[in-house]
Amino acid sequence: MNSQASYLPSKVAILGPGLLGGSLLMALRQKLPGVHLRAWARRREAVAELEALELAEICSDDLAMVVEGADLVVICTPVRTMAVLGRQLAKLPLAKGAVVTDVGSVKAMVVAGMEEALSGSGFDFVGSHPMAGSERAGLEAARANLFEGQGCLITPTLFTTDRALGVVREFWRLMGCRLLEMGPEEHDRCVARISHMPHLAAAAVTLAAMQDDHSVRLCVGNGFRDTTRVASGNPDLWTGIVFENRDEVLHAVRAARDRFSDLVDILEKLDEDKMRQFLRESKVLRDLAAPNV
Amino acid sequence: MNSQASYLPSKVAILGPGLLGGSLLMALRQKLPGVHLRAWARRREAVAELEALELAEICSDDLAMVVEGADLVVICTPVRTMAVLGRQLAKLPLAKGAVVTDVGSVKAMVVAGMEEALSGSGFDFVGSHPMAGSERAGLEAARANLFEGQGCLITPTLFTTDRALGVVREFWRLMGCRLLEMGPEEHDRCVARISHMPHLAAAAVTLAAMQDDHSVRLCVGNGFRDTTRVASGNPDLWTGIVFENRDEVLHAVRAARDRFSDLVDILEKLDEDKMRQFLRESKVLRDLAAPNV
Repeated sequence: MNSQASYLPSKVAILGPGLLGGSLLMALRQKLPGVHLRAWARRREAVAELEALELAEICSDDLAMVVEGADLVVICTPVRTMAVLGRQLAKLPLAKGAVVTDVGSVKAMVVAGMEEALSGSGFDFVGSHPMAGSERAGLEAARANLFEGQGCLITPTLFTTDRALGVVREFWRLMGCRLLEMGPEEHDRCVARISHMPHLAAAAVTLAAMQDDHSVRLCVGNGFRDTTRVASGNPDLWTGIVFENRDEVLHAVRAARDRFSDLVDILEKLDEDKMRQFLRESKVLRDLAAPNV
Repeated sequence: MNSQASYLPSKVAILGPGLLGGSLLMALRQKLPGVHLRAWARRREAVAELEALELAEICSDDLAMVVEGADLVVICTPVRTMAVLGRQLAKLPLAKGAVVTDVGSVKAMVVAGMEEALSGSGFDFVGSHPMAGSERAGLEAARANLFEGQGCLITPTLFTTDRALGVVREFWRLMGCRLLEMGPEEHDRCVARISHMPHLAAAAVTLAAMQDDHSVRLCVGNGFRDTTRVASGNPDLWTGIVFENRDEVLHAVRAARDRFSDLVDILEKLDEDKMRQFLRESKVLRDLAAPNV
């Protein structure tokens, strides 16, 4: 038995089994056949769906029953509900010592909220953000290999214990993720630019292309399909995400608007050299960011 | 022998064998084993590369030799060189009666230029635009199935003959394309919105995300990868394309800049309802445009 194996959890509670939570249950069942799985959902219908799919030993809307004795709790609900769940967890006397993490796309407010909520409760929190979303949502889109080969950002703070960090690292490695660690604020600055703003850009491009004439859709090719794919995401979820990270998103959206103003200017002035320079610089950066196209 | 078969060409000349031209040669060889293939390239090294790959019976930088006796000529050079090639074709006495088409991403200026250049020459032109580009370019990225299942826009005008239209329709169907016909101006309006502006948007998003801090690339996930994929395209080719379609592109880029200004406004005013509405409307349009994600 090596030291790493001691970090593998034996009882895992997944709170909020949508796309991410459902995929975690499937992956855990596959990779740790002996693990004891529990799933909590707020709605009775969601619990019934979980039971029908036999994704966990215990499926319930009773939080206390689900987390009792768990050594790892993963919160997979929308970012804005996380602090509420954290405060409910803090009141439970049943799972002291469990490591708690989450899958939220925003970290500064979530981590601060969870650390405050769980302070002194015996739960041991560290935030994480697996970069494995999809424009599809819900349990019906879940799959065991969703995390395989994807990045997972882990966001420790001064309050994070070595034990929690060790458990959470080992857990995401088991899920197949490449790990990266940074503070919650640094995380939010990065994902505002690399995920949240591009999400809003996909929506803005779709509206600008189609808003006043739907017929242009007949000409859609792979370029439009890829450029706007994320605009098919859940509008309510994403409204929550961008407002939870509002300052950094605003900064990135202003930068994008300014680049569009540059483009208008370049086209108005027929400045081909500047256009070439604009496209060259962005190609260099894009090839740097995602070399395997 | 059915009436359609009579439209299939027996000698095809491909001018400019990069990604699109090279893929056409490969697809033709596969689908019409008896066809006689010719390829023209401006540069000697490109001719040598063609010869090494044995993609055509005749590979040459001598335009007259390549088009002699061809019944179909497909121009696959960058859009700005097309009219020049058209004027050179018009001077050749060797291929009268051949149908000529192109693969340009811009149509109004190309079609007008070609119709003028070939007027009275005996060549019979109709424009086409297979929506099968790629962020990769050049002969080394070519493949026989590039066009399979892709849309191809054909842009007849009042000068287009039934014969030319019949030959070109049959040709792209053979390549595996879904056909759509519209006038050159209508084409340019559509692709400015659905292809050229989204291309510039991918570049603008990349610059806004990364320009002042390359380290954010560590957080790149599938969303950024897809949203910005086309920004890896060839900067010189795309500068030519957007300036050849400058008025329509400017219109679409202004619309996109205005949507970004809306986003800045929404975030500044903390108007969550408006954000939800923005994302909902774009999701409806995006799902309408590309239902199979």
